[in-house]
Amino acid sequence: MKTFFNVEDLGNLNDALAEAKEIKNNRFGYQELGKNKTLLMIFFNNSLRTRLSTQKAAMNLGVNVIVLDVNAGAWKLETERGVIMDGDKSEHLLEAIPVMGSYCDIIGIRSFAGLSDRDYDYAETIVNQFVKYSGRPVFAMETSTVHPLQAFADLFTIEEYKQTTRPKVVLSWAPHCKSLPQAVPNSFAQWMNAADVDFVITHPEGYELDPKFAGNAKIEYNQKKAFDNADFIYAKNWSCPGVTNPADYGKIINSDPSWTVDTEHMSWTNNGYFMHCLPVRRGLIVTDDVIESDHSLVIPEAANREISAEVVIKRMLESL
Amino acid sequence: MKTFFNVEDLGNLNDALAEAKEIKNNRFGYQELGKNKTLLMIFFNNSLRTRLSTQKAAMNLGVNVIVLDVNAGAWKLETERGVIMDGDKSEHLLEAIPVMGSYCDIIGIRSFAGLSDRDYDYAETIVNQFVKYSGRPVFAMETSTVHPLQAFADLFTIEEYKQTTRPKVVLSWAPHCKSLPQAVPNSFAQWMNAADVDFVITHPEGYELDPKFAGNAKIEYNQKKAFDNADFIYAKNWSCPGVTNPADYGKIINSDPSWTVDTEHMSWTNNGYFMHCLPVRRGLIVTDDVIESDHSLVIPEAANREISAEVVIKRMLESL
Amino acid sequence: MKTFFNVEDLGNLNDALAEAKEIKNNRFGYQELGKNKTLLMIFFNNSLRTRLSTQKAAMNLGVNVIVLDVNAGAWKLETERGVIMDGDKSEHLLEAIPVMGSYCDIIGIRSFAGLSDRDYDYAETIVNQFVKYSGRPVFAMETSTVHPLQAFADLFTIEEYKQTTRPKVVLSWAPHCKSLPQAVPNSFAQWMNAADVDFVITHPEGYELDPKFAGNAKIEYNQKKAFDNADFIYAKNWSCPGVTNPADYGKIINSDPSWTVDTEHMSWTNNGYFMHCLPVRRGLIVTDDVIESDHSLVIPEAANREISAEVVIKRMLESL
Repeated sequence: MKTFFNVEDLGNLNDALAEAKEIKNNRFGYQELGKNKTLLMIFFNNSLRTRLSTQKAAMNLGVNVIVLDVNAGAWKLETERGVIMDGDKSEHLLEAIPVMGSYCDIIGIRSFAGLSDRDYDYAETIVNQFVKYSGRPVFAMETSTVHPLQAFADLFTIEEYKQTTRPKVVLSWAPHCKSLPQAVPNSFAQWMNAADVDFVITHPEGYELDPKFAGNAKIEYNQKKAFDNADFIYAKNWSCPGVTNPADYGKIINSDPSWTVDTEHMSWTNNGYFMHCLPVRRGLIVTDDVIESDHSLVIPEAANREISAEVVIKRMLESL
Repeated sequence: MKTFFNVEDLGNLNDALAEAKEIKNNRFGYQELGKNKTLLMIFFNNSLRTRLSTQKAAMNLGVNVIVLDVNAGAWKLETERGVIMDGDKSEHLLEAIPVMGSYCDIIGIRSFAGLSDRDYDYAETIVNQFVKYSGRPVFAMETSTVHPLQAFADLFTIEEYKQTTRPKVVLSWAPHCKSLPQAVPNSFAQWMNAADVDFVITHPEGYELDPKFAGNAKIEYNQKKAFDNADFIYAKNWSCPGVTNPADYGKIINSDPSWTVDTEHMSWTNNGYFMHCLPVRRGLIVTDDVIESDHSLVIPEAANREISAEVVIKRMLESL
Repeated sequence: MKTFFNVEDLGNLNDALAEAKEIKNNRFGYQELGKNKTLLMIFFNNSLRTRLSTQKAAMNLGVNVIVLDVNAGAWKLETERGVIMDGDKSEHLLEAIPVMGSYCDIIGIRSFAGLSDRDYDYAETIVNQFVKYSGRPVFAMETSTVHPLQAFADLFTIEEYKQTTRPKVVLSWAPHCKSLPQAVPNSFAQWMNAADVDFVITHPEGYELDPKFAGNAKIEYNQKKAFDNADFIYAKNWSCPGVTNPADYGKIINSDPSWTVDTEHMSWTNNGYFMHCLPVRRGLIVTDDVIESDHSLVIPEAANREISAEVVIKRMLESL
């Protein structure tokens, strides 16, 4: 595996899930693969879960880890040619990226959406440049539009907890006080569309995800109807994806508190499990009662981030 | 050992000191214990000595180390239930702590006193939440009220240098230009009370340490009398503990320069050794002559931080 | 090897180059040397290439690495005696340095020139204090006046690409929008003077390097004459070294764009290679066409930083 951004990068999804299960039972069984190999984790944005879980996964595999925190304000990369670089950009990506590639074997990169320019964000310019110029396998630790380590961990968690062959999974928008990217819902939708589940997305009008990710998922604007008989509720806020109205891209166009997932919401489900990628703001996305209930999977999901990262790094090591 | 905050956590103190001595002579002898184990060091505050010595100790034991610097301003944890989290706190501790616990085997935590709310500081809320919710052994890398790795290293240093069976040890307050926590003197007092030494605390009136830590130590307000015939002088500043006057908690209520330890002060002792936990401000706590003398133990004390940390991590590994 | 600041520290230069070649082909062949050894990398300034390449080199050798980023604003070291430390300096170097030394086996240090006080910068006070008080081998990761890991990598790159026994190498000043230190050109000049090359330095009048580094190199103020028949062009900006006019130390006294290396400049050479230590500002130092040409060595130079660091750390390990 040379890149990990989309579900297709995993190839056969059932094989990948089986590999995740195997690794979860044998985390330290592949250290020969990682011997004398180095993972460079590049963070253009803050990170807690991703930083810790990916580092842990690499160490499980015997891989050396170098963490690079790029202060976006202090180190801006020039991307154009023909520019006289006398401003605040002190290095050109055409030098910076191959140099970083020369000191490692695998690159993980985090680079969030700016949420001001839809075309720029959805073009994934920075990440694609790393793929093109680094000479190394590159995986996403959340980019402008995708967070595949999270979606893989989420699907694996659903596999662990599902009680029917084909569970009903609902991705539900919920209100938030800040504008958040669409990376998590995009990847979750992409993964669910590829998995053997009955998948429904529910959100207020205007929050339609990009068709590239929403695919053929059923869209249900009535949250109660969507939750009916659901086995898993995946709550998440996202800002306006700008599909129906590009001028609204990145904005908060709805903050209706009735979308907050509480015990009444969960009562509409088939004794469903509650999921969220974390961090979560209680009282906005979900109530204390729901997230603390014995049907909340937020901690197991987070713990499985170590597993999804280990599968990805293992496969990249195998491809070297 | 599942927690390390107080001297009681070590069990028999002589056994712990013997173990420290053994480890100092065989630092790399226990790497099988640490294989495939991970220490997560969480810093809510800056650190130099603790960061380096604890990391070194863990690596001596073959333990993988992940260092997490939490910018307290950027990542505030909500601790209450029933709150709508629409302010500056983006995550609830009930999610954050078990997630961090899921990526490691042992947690070290640094979280200083705020010095504005005595009850909050002395309740050790943050640290206790890590003990309760992380599911991992937790040790203090200096908390609001204790710094046991320092006190353990200090006692071990006294053991190495003492020339009588039961030396006289004096903890002496000294002036400082900033309000400092009581963590170091609290732990030092606790350790000395548990050790086989003649222990005296000297400070201006109003600086009485919390009885939980001062215990039955002799308090002597006359510094010269306290120093008389002392074998070890442990100088340290601390702000008002607020025992006699809670309104003064965390304040500087005395800055008398006559308490600065100089050669005259040391002449009152039994050719005593000078100790301090570092960093130390010269000219306030101690003069150049005293700290640079051949009876200054500040560097050996600091070097022994590696040893105290290694004993603690080794014992926690043995408990897994 | 106990220090690495100047070319003389390497001893026989041909032996060092042969060792670099051997290590490049066998990066992981010396891990027994590094077992249970710790490198402490201390950064008083930002770093990308040096941070990554030195860390990679140490890990190649099986060495544990601790990275310490010192925020110069937050942790100022007092260097004088007899001072009452009631200001912003919270620790004296006479404590801080031996303590840091006690937790590691080798120290790498980065501490840039302030460019305001020539005597202070060229005295290398901070670095010399680490040599004197740390008790450990110390190497430069760029100091006020030298950057030997870069110069060693540069010479090794020239060895790899040279097509004549004694190539002509030109160090050329080029304009820049910020005041930059002289560390890179100083070390490059020192290394070239020691190597078997025909070495010329070209720059506008007033930019003369300190004689300690320029040595007997030929100085040619006419850039075109300097470039004539050159095999390697090493472009670099530096601020005024203050040799001819001390009052100009650290200032930009020329910004003539005709010194920017473009294809016409390169046409004057013997089909020469272009070199630069990176990061480089395009349009000021060099044009896109030149740096992207197949005769640009900027990426191989950077990759060889791993090799120069590994030779240095290996030799220091051998000296322990």
